[in-house]
Amino acid sequence: MTYCVGLRLNQGLVFMSDTRTNAGVDNFSTTRKQFSWEVEGERVITIMTAGNLATTQSLISLLEERSKHAVDRNPSILSEPTMFQVARLVGATLREVIAYSNDTGVDRFRASVIVGGQIRGGEPTIFMVYPEGNFIEVTDETPFFQIGETKYGKPILVRGYDPEMTFTDTVKLLLVSFDSTVKSNLSVGLPFDILCYRKDSFDIEVRKRVELNDPVYRKIAEGWSKALRESFLSLPDYDL
Amino acid sequence: MTYCVGLRLNQGLVFMSDTRTNAGVDNFSTTRKQFSWEVEGERVITIMTAGNLATTQSLISLLEERSKHAVDRNPSILSEPTMFQVARLVGATLREVIAYSNDTGVDRFRASVIVGGQIRGGEPTIFMVYPEGNFIEVTDETPFFQIGETKYGKPILVRGYDPEMTFTDTVKLLLVSFDSTVKSNLSVGLPFDILCYRKDSFDIEVRKRVELNDPVYRKIAEGWSKALRESFLSLPDYDL
Repeated sequence: MTYCVGLRLNQGLVFMSDTRTNAGVDNFSTTRKQFSWEVEGERVITIMTAGNLATTQSLISLLEERSKHAVDRNPSILSEPTMFQVARLVGATLREVIAYSNDTGVDRFRASVIVGGQIRGGEPTIFMVYPEGNFIEVTDETPFFQIGETKYGKPILVRGYDPEMTFTDTVKLLLVSFDSTVKSNLSVGLPFDILCYRKDSFDIEVRKRVELNDPVYRKIAEGWSKALRESFLSLPDYDL
Repeated sequence: MTYCVGLRLNQGLVFMSDTRTNAGVDNFSTTRKQFSWEVEGERVITIMTAGNLATTQSLISLLEERSKHAVDRNPSILSEPTMFQVARLVGATLREVIAYSNDTGVDRFRASVIVGGQIRGGEPTIFMVYPEGNFIEVTDETPFFQIGETKYGKPILVRGYDPEMTFTDTVKLLLVSFDSTVKSNLSVGLPFDILCYRKDSFDIEVRKRVELNDPVYRKIAEGWSKALRESFLSLPDYDL
């Protein structure tokens, strides 16, 4: 499985993804699931993928036009005029890749995608793209999307999210959400990839990989367990 | 859906279940999913069910021998010599009910069951029974079982559980776990049913229903949101 979250704040966008892929418990490895394209001063686009690895790799390769010689490539993702058009391009490409595999009669090469970013002239935004190629966009009521193994990490996001948050607090919140998922599900694992994009900067502000032995991550994970227990003990008793 | 947890402590057993049943969002209602049998001084047995309502109701009716006239009933669940035998009885009955419905060619009348309790001569214990009729038992490493919509509420259980806990703290922990689930998933809802059984008492110590407007539950739910935010802010920053 996978766990990815894309989150819209007043000050920009934050994306986090894990890197574990597996086909059974004895066949797992580390794969990047976060990809970005940048035209400095004009656009920043980030894609995160969950689902069948052959499908998601094929999607990214097609978006990068790897079917052509390197010199002939001119990815449409770099020229689409709006984020809405980018989402349509991603949706159409994803649907095409899945249709090709499903032609074999096997209906399991599905994938979901989060695509977000900003193109000059528009606002920063995030879309969730379904295997069928259609998509939904973040709103004030639904300011983040999750794909993959989403349930374990949702309660803390629902409670902790605030559109006014800084990047630092948001990353902390996401680390807690990812840590809750990792602790409950073997198919999600470190390292995590983080990308922060500040509104109207048209430039990636933060790109970081959190490794398994990262001391701050470990402190956050342990601190969270401890803080949870303390919070919990501070709650009123339910009279039995 | 449903959410039920059965948890073994050093001092006994605690069971909690929600009561929402639904067949689509415009067809939902409140149904008890927790059932118990008691022979004072000799045995206490509790069952919680998740899955197709026709299946689970039929299971409970058969266990209570409602196919017979009231005067002729002599439920085997009251005479099985060990909890292991009780689990076998529940598994065999569940499997039979599912097989009957599935004979129609429809394979969706599945259900899962948690059954726990103590019979004089044995230790208190809990089993999780699968639709196929087989089952697993709690161990020191796996001291609780969840059925239904289990993922949202798992991280806090994993972090908060301690075999030395009191009933009061355990119920508080479960209320937080249930509240996390209710906040993330429409198919789980109040009221909640709670049952606490103290080891070697052969008597139900606590049986309670937590209603939606219960003031202590509301305080715990709100206090938890607040405490989470505070805990979260107390964590070290991840340097970006």
